[in-house]
Amino acid sequence: MPIRIVADLRDQVQAPALSKPPKDNTAPERAVLAQWREAQAVCFDVDCTVTQQDSLDLLAEFLGRGDQVAHLTDKAMNGEVSLEEALRDRLRIIDCTPEELTSFIQAYPPTTRLTKGVSKLISALQARGKAVYLISGGFRELILPFARELGIPPTNVFANRINWQVDDETGLVTRMVGFDERELTSKQGGKPAAIAQLREMYPYETIAMIGDGITDLEAVEITGGADIFIGYGGVVVRDAVRDGADWFVNDFEDLSQALERHQVAFIGSGAWACAAAKLVARNCQLSSESTGEFEKAVRMWVYEEQIGDRKLTDIINERHENVKYLPGVNIGDNIVACPDLLETVQGADVLVFCTPHQFTRDICRQLRGNVNLDAVAISLTKGMRVRAEGPQLISEMVRKNLNIDCSVLMGANIAKDIGNEELSEATIGYAVPANGELFKRLFETPYFYVQLVPDIAGAEMAGTLKNIVALAAGFVDGLQKGPNTKAAIMRAGLNEMRSLAERIYPTVRDNTFFESCGVADLIATCYGGRNRLVAEAYVHAYQSGSPKCFDILEAELLAGQKLQGVLTSDEVQSILQVRGWEADYPLFTAVNGIINGLLPPTAITEYKSAAITSQWQ
Amino acid sequence: MPIRIVADLRDQVQAPALSKPPKDNTAPERAVLAQWREAQAVCFDVDCTVTQQDSLDLLAEFLGRGDQVAHLTDKAMNGEVSLEEALRDRLRIIDCTPEELTSFIQAYPPTTRLTKGVSKLISALQARGKAVYLISGGFRELILPFARELGIPPTNVFANRINWQVDDETGLVTRMVGFDERELTSKQGGKPAAIAQLREMYPYETIAMIGDGITDLEAVEITGGADIFIGYGGVVVRDAVRDGADWFVNDFEDLSQALERHQVAFIGSGAWACAAAKLVARNCQLSSESTGEFEKAVRMWVYEEQIGDRKLTDIINERHENVKYLPGVNIGDNIVACPDLLETVQGADVLVFCTPHQFTRDICRQLRGNVNLDAVAISLTKGMRVRAEGPQLISEMVRKNLNIDCSVLMGANIAKDIGNEELSEATIGYAVPANGELFKRLFETPYFYVQLVPDIAGAEMAGTLKNIVALAAGFVDGLQKGPNTKAAIMRAGLNEMRSLAERIYPTVRDNTFFESCGVADLIATCYGGRNRLVAEAYVHAYQSGSPKCFDILEAELLAGQKLQGVLTSDEVQSILQVRGWEADYPLFTAVNGIINGLLPPTAITEYKSAAITSQWQ
Repeated sequence: MPIRIVADLRDQVQAPALSKPPKDNTAPERAVLAQWREAQAVCFDVDCTVTQQDSLDLLAEFLGRGDQVAHLTDKAMNGEVSLEEALRDRLRIIDCTPEELTSFIQAYPPTTRLTKGVSKLISALQARGKAVYLISGGFRELILPFARELGIPPTNVFANRINWQVDDETGLVTRMVGFDERELTSKQGGKPAAIAQLREMYPYETIAMIGDGITDLEAVEITGGADIFIGYGGVVVRDAVRDGADWFVNDFEDLSQALERHQVAFIGSGAWACAAAKLVARNCQLSSESTGEFEKAVRMWVYEEQIGDRKLTDIINERHENVKYLPGVNIGDNIVACPDLLETVQGADVLVFCTPHQFTRDICRQLRGNVNLDAVAISLTKGMRVRAEGPQLISEMVRKNLNIDCSVLMGANIAKDIGNEELSEATIGYAVPANGELFKRLFETPYFYVQLVPDIAGAEMAGTLKNIVALAAGFVDGLQKGPNTKAAIMRAGLNEMRSLAERIYPTVRDNTFFESCGVADLIATCYGGRNRLVAEAYVHAYQSGSPKCFDILEAELLAGQKLQGVLTSDEVQSILQVRGWEADYPLFTAVNGIINGLLPPTAITEYKSAAITSQWQ
Repeated sequence: MPIRIVADLRDQVQAPALSKPPKDNTAPERAVLAQWREAQAVCFDVDCTVTQQDSLDLLAEFLGRGDQVAHLTDKAMNGEVSLEEALRDRLRIIDCTPEELTSFIQAYPPTTRLTKGVSKLISALQARGKAVYLISGGFRELILPFARELGIPPTNVFANRINWQVDDETGLVTRMVGFDERELTSKQGGKPAAIAQLREMYPYETIAMIGDGITDLEAVEITGGADIFIGYGGVVVRDAVRDGADWFVNDFEDLSQALERHQVAFIGSGAWACAAAKLVARNCQLSSESTGEFEKAVRMWVYEEQIGDRKLTDIINERHENVKYLPGVNIGDNIVACPDLLETVQGADVLVFCTPHQFTRDICRQLRGNVNLDAVAISLTKGMRVRAEGPQLISEMVRKNLNIDCSVLMGANIAKDIGNEELSEATIGYAVPANGELFKRLFETPYFYVQLVPDIAGAEMAGTLKNIVALAAGFVDGLQKGPNTKAAIMRAGLNEMRSLAERIYPTVRDNTFFESCGVADLIATCYGGRNRLVAEAYVHAYQSGSPKCFDILEAELLAGQKLQGVLTSDEVQSILQVRGWEADYPLFTAVNGIINGLLPPTAITEYKSAAITSQWQ
């Protein structure tokens, strides 16, 4: 937050208004624009900023006492008399009853009095998760109708309160008798004081103040006040305000346009990638029509294949459908399939990774040095890389290779069902709360609920390890055991998942496993996923006397999709072996024995027996 | 623990052995018998108690120096010389090499030297979860072979250690040079000191000491020592020991026989009751053949019905099968079906409750005043009673009506699968750890794993509330939604279960929901249970245009079994309504709306929408 020399500004304020040429600060400097985009809280002055007229002036006019009040207002806004003085004088002149106030608000409803573009701007800010405040030297009674109209909660309004006189006999409110001088905004320096109070209550790093008057400009003048001041000249232009502003706009559309518009790039085009891309496409479409947070077009990197005599990218761009991996689902006409990885991410600041996990490392290496420095990423990929020094999650791989924040989205995600808009859920694990919120806005739809957890490793480990348990569930199904046995195996698997995740990443939280990425993903995968399907087929082939290996079953059953569980099981087992942990994870160990042909499928229901474990030690 | 007047005992010890008539304390007093049964730890002297001869005497004989040593041993056991003195003298005479010691042990292996019945007694104690210790004034080197034979860990052996001389040149052990005088057992009063140390390490309430010598009798003489002393006269009878003992036995079989033999009564005979009874029957059968912890015969209360022209109890007693509720499963020929409730529980001290929950209260009222005062109970029943002052769990109902401890067993329990010995699991929630352990021994089998959690309310609430979620799962199945949707609904249900359990019973632990009673029971019930089945049928009937109510579907589909979920849902909903909590439990509330015909089944996938919730507020 920049510290300003207050004396300089005071000089400008005192200088005669017309003696200097107008300063052109209608195009913001780069640093100012960055602060505007970053701001977590935006504070608006109300009179002549949010409203077309000063409400107190208009009220005086409504009461037939306009001229006397307008004169005092001008003096105050030009800094010629103190705020308290002007307020006291104006209120004395207005001196109205509650009924008169109500009549006034009915005669001039907020919708007719909002400045151009302010409503859209505030919606756009709110859609981006920014907090919006109204800070005014006027009165709450006159401001709350606007707050309601703009969707700003009353607790986000800082303003003065009228004191009223109550009739001794009837107990009814009769006349105004001044204002509550304890309110921050009733005094000189009230606006920066209100902002300082916000800083105490919330961890905002950047706060913007927007207004038309000297009292608004004051908000950036002290340490602990706002970080940038944007002057607004759509109703009144005050030279001192214009010259003192970091950025001066005559139309709120300039501010809306300048807000960040995220460009999303989607890396991957398998079944799950297409189902997820459909969610993203929907939200980018809607956003481009309203808040503008996301650009409408979403580029999707597709590993090029020939489908008959045509290219897969051409088919997707023409039919908005991945006929090979998610046939029958329209993924959205704003998805643009692109066979070139670097072209896909060009200009994008939001990257979604959703490829089989064995490909992510190569993709990251190609992307290194070729993505926006301020980009953020999310991984939908389940799996891990095993290195001598320990496992590496996909989100870590993205974070370390590209040097950008990487959240994860994990959950109970059978691609076809999400493609068909069946009720589903997912969990986003984040490290930076604002990025978690951003991705929630990017993915959540009325049929796809998203929960946020501050536990990337927990969510990702759950999403990864559950594929091993799904193989176990497939074996149980292949052996035609009942729901009891399957539930017992799944529960044992869930507890091994949790134990291993917490052992490798001590920050992992138990409760993450109650979220969609934990128990729900496990259930969906153990009943509907492809690991389960192939494992079941493995048992049938084994029992029929002509066993088939997993590679062959994968090719036969999955139409080119990859099986994550087998690879993950081998990777996890090598971690368990190196660390001497096999005996603590008997179910994982039994699964690995079965998939490698060292144990018969029936070993799955005897996973606890020492015999199995000891084979592996 | 009784405090004794040490002087009295000393008088007896000093008195000439033959001047008094032998005291008959071979039949224990009632209080002594109770202490024997209660003891959590039992300490055995070794020489002439566990072994037929004094090992040091036998070793001396083996070395050809028997007479000199036997004389000293007798003097010590009669209290004529101090223990330390006798030990030092005897060791000086024996003075052997390590090789001689090894040869001795090989020549007299432990199996040939154990006293009659001691092995069986120690097994029976261990099977009951009691800790067994060996406390001896002899030497570890001579005792450890016996400990190994009896399954007693070396850490449970208190004895003296020989000091050895090591050859300067070779570093090899050559000769014994006395003993470690720092060991507790090397001094007068060493046995009570060892017991006092046990009390510091473990929360034993009652400790029994068994032995043949004066030093064993000493173990009860001081505060902090053993609570009862049982004299053993199978090898040597010392008058002072016999007279000072709380109980004197010549055969360990007397002690084995006197151990508690639990008589189990099983209340209930539905499908789940029969599957659970089969587990109990197996364990009671095995126990009666070995440790004797449980009586072989288990009475089972059966609500009498006519099956054709025969009584159900007669069929069960003849065919060992409940042909109506769990056909095809042999529940064990030691199950005795009994149509009379009070006769069933007569003499029983372990009560298993497993009836539909709406019947439990009546059963408890009939039982009041008619069950053993020291009985313990376990409830396998899922459900709750709703009263104006709040819910009452079944375990609370049993506990309050009968004034006995009541654990619960909850888990993923599809009766048929357990009947068929498919791998299954359950969770026992307990308040008294020893009772939890007892029930684990009563229920666990190689195909039925039991986990213990110190959280009765959590386990029972999970088992009860999951039936509501199972209805939701059945609706999802009826609507033919995919695994994603079902997983999302189940997860939401699990979280509502957890939230409500913790809100009503603040001691409930999150982690209980990761156990079989939580996530596994939920999975098994949502895929294989009868609530799911009937809810699915409800949707089909509803969609076909001829809806049927749950009572009719229950009658059509369940062959007389009761549906818990519908009743539980209504009970839970009345709690939510009274407390104004409906909005916090939208899934439970949607289920209740559907079963009462106020919402269509399709509302289940829209449970989150405010519309549904607001209907109920």
